[in-house]
Amino acid sequence: MQFKEQSITYPPVHPGTDRTFIRYYDRNTDFSYVFFKDHSEQTPARIFVTDSNVAQTSLFQSFYHHFSSEAVLLKHTVEKSGNDTLIIVDPGESHKTIETVLSIISTALNCNAQRNTVFIGIGGGVICDMTAFAASIFKRGSRVELVPTTLLSMVDAAIGGKTGCDFDNYKNMIGTFFPAQKIHIFPAFIKSLSSEQFRSGLAEVVKTALLYNSDLFTILEQNRDRVFKQEESFIDNIIETCASAKSRIVEQDLTENNIRMQLNFGHTFGHALETCAGLGTVSHGDAVAWGIGRALALSKRLGLCPGEYEQRVVKMLSEYGWEIASVHSALKQQFTNTATYAQTLCEVMKKDKKNNSNRIRFILQKNITDTVIAEVEESDILAVLSHD
Amino acid sequence: MQFKEQSITYPPVHPGTDRTFIRYYDRNTDFSYVFFKDHSEQTPARIFVTDSNVAQTSLFQSFYHHFSSEAVLLKHTVEKSGNDTLIIVDPGESHKTIETVLSIISTALNCNAQRNTVFIGIGGGVICDMTAFAASIFKRGSRVELVPTTLLSMVDAAIGGKTGCDFDNYKNMIGTFFPAQKIHIFPAFIKSLSSEQFRSGLAEVVKTALLYNSDLFTILEQNRDRVFKQEESFIDNIIETCASAKSRIVEQDLTENNIRMQLNFGHTFGHALETCAGLGTVSHGDAVAWGIGRALALSKRLGLCPGEYEQRVVKMLSEYGWEIASVHSALKQQFTNTATYAQTLCEVMKKDKKNNSNRIRFILQKNITDTVIAEVEESDILAVLSHD
Repeated sequence: MQFKEQSITYPPVHPGTDRTFIRYYDRNTDFSYVFFKDHSEQTPARIFVTDSNVAQTSLFQSFYHHFSSEAVLLKHTVEKSGNDTLIIVDPGESHKTIETVLSIISTALNCNAQRNTVFIGIGGGVICDMTAFAASIFKRGSRVELVPTTLLSMVDAAIGGKTGCDFDNYKNMIGTFFPAQKIHIFPAFIKSLSSEQFRSGLAEVVKTALLYNSDLFTILEQNRDRVFKQEESFIDNIIETCASAKSRIVEQDLTENNIRMQLNFGHTFGHALETCAGLGTVSHGDAVAWGIGRALALSKRLGLCPGEYEQRVVKMLSEYGWEIASVHSALKQQFTNTATYAQTLCEVMKKDKKNNSNRIRFILQKNITDTVIAEVEESDILAVLSHD
Repeated sequence: MQFKEQSITYPPVHPGTDRTFIRYYDRNTDFSYVFFKDHSEQTPARIFVTDSNVAQTSLFQSFYHHFSSEAVLLKHTVEKSGNDTLIIVDPGESHKTIETVLSIISTALNCNAQRNTVFIGIGGGVICDMTAFAASIFKRGSRVELVPTTLLSMVDAAIGGKTGCDFDNYKNMIGTFFPAQKIHIFPAFIKSLSSEQFRSGLAEVVKTALLYNSDLFTILEQNRDRVFKQEESFIDNIIETCASAKSRIVEQDLTENNIRMQLNFGHTFGHALETCAGLGTVSHGDAVAWGIGRALALSKRLGLCPGEYEQRVVKMLSEYGWEIASVHSALKQQFTNTATYAQTLCEVMKKDKKNNSNRIRFILQKNITDTVIAEVEESDILAVLSHD
């Protein structure tokens, strides 16, 4: 066999995505002012994407008035104002599909959007992930900014350039790494969350604390009332602490080749639960909190962490109202047989993005902030899904 | 308004995509040997993607035998062999859709493909672009290698990391920049091309010559017979010359911020023709050759290039059998009114990915290998679409 070989090397892909600015605004900032104060017909066109839940929040109204005279009626899903376009999609995980992503792209195309058009996602993780995915494949990459409106997206989902949507009932199975140019954090949006949505975000806060900040975990243990009351400066500090912690990690490993994998603590079990229950049935945060419990049960079983540590975390999770039983109530009706339940979750975990073989890779802990990555025997996984 | 700001910087995205090896094999190399000689069950899984035209070529048969005992019957579109999977999709531009891309991803998912799975596209530009797009969004980025089987994809489409598919009847409207790790060039595949497919690839050869290699253009002018006879060493040299020229350009500007735009010479007009005629009606190469003629007519009209240069190129294009009339025969039935014809093509060009405003950007020439980029008044564009 004869061949000649030549090699080409490339500069970093997408010059516009090599830096992200995260802006933390105070609670009194007028959300719409930030986007319209300096805006003129000469600035590049913008495609705002949100969902109908966010569009109905009081904070959104001053923004919405830039587009429509009949603000809250939501008669149309696409509004134009000068070179700005507002797309309102249906809310929720069940709409985190390639069809929704393509509908954003189709609207952008009809608005003559160009590569310098900025796609701005205003919403929770679902909206942020889909908007950024659409921006990343539109004409092979335009620009994206994000306005996370849930606790979960402020402390986690919006930061770090992961984009995507669900596919074939698997979470985030397709997507890209395409960091936002700016992330605008308005903690005032927290007030618009249901207590369920708020709790979902808290699970990622707990995860961050266990991975990187034992003081924060102690604070969470000792201040449940301040958390549940959503005391403003207390919550705003937590948001900044968690967003900064995640930033430091993704800065070192954007495409998840090594330390970024730690951020999946609780997620391998959690994603499997979400998938088996049907996406959208169990909230992401509740699934992650349950997954953290399972990951620590597995850590204990493998002799990695002391039983006291596992018990401490389990106690905290229960006190905050999370379900921690090995057989999750959302799947009890579906699986009367515990063995089948465990086997099914196991099969789903094999499809997880982080595996490089048929063995399943888990993020486990020896103790708080002492994290390891390990491939685990199926028998051990089945054991912690069958009994505590 | 109060805010704090933090910035995160990233290392190059996708470490696996920072270098491409291009291998030029001689005509005697057994195509399947290259892929199976060192392969074992331990190496990462591979997803081969091809179309039913390529799968029926004689060169493909030894390869196909690794998968099926009933080689040429093509009873199934998905074949398994150990940890290898072969996907055969329908051929042609009309199948260059997000649905086909998603069907590749869906199959990969069912085969438990992981991030270290290699997607290997074997085919023309359509197969190479779609396979690489699927690989780039599967689990946020796996790996890709390409085996271009047409002259067009050997000299152009496979090189340079552009991936994607058509959308809403617009060419390559969605996609990513995601370079292949290896590009395997087997010139022996040239024999399997129809004369129409061969001519389509020649148009990109002519483009490369006009942009970067005036000697090559003279050779093409003087050796039409050797080209048409597809004299082996003569063609193999042309392939290597053109692939190398393109490599040098994309190496300097992968994401098309500056000099890579030159490679769109003839493509703005060409893409508009393809779109208006209905994708797949006029071959890409024929459209590009026609577009080169229009781009030079525009260059002459704007006083950029001497009439002699335009005439020299037009003469060569005609002698090679390309259509060069301002009103293309493929659209004559659709548009009896020349003004409407010109206006429609113009509207389509406004959606081109390379524009950053409503003005249309063209690649024009002052002379051979002397290229400029310019935004042009609509009246001038309309003029060169109405008469020569």
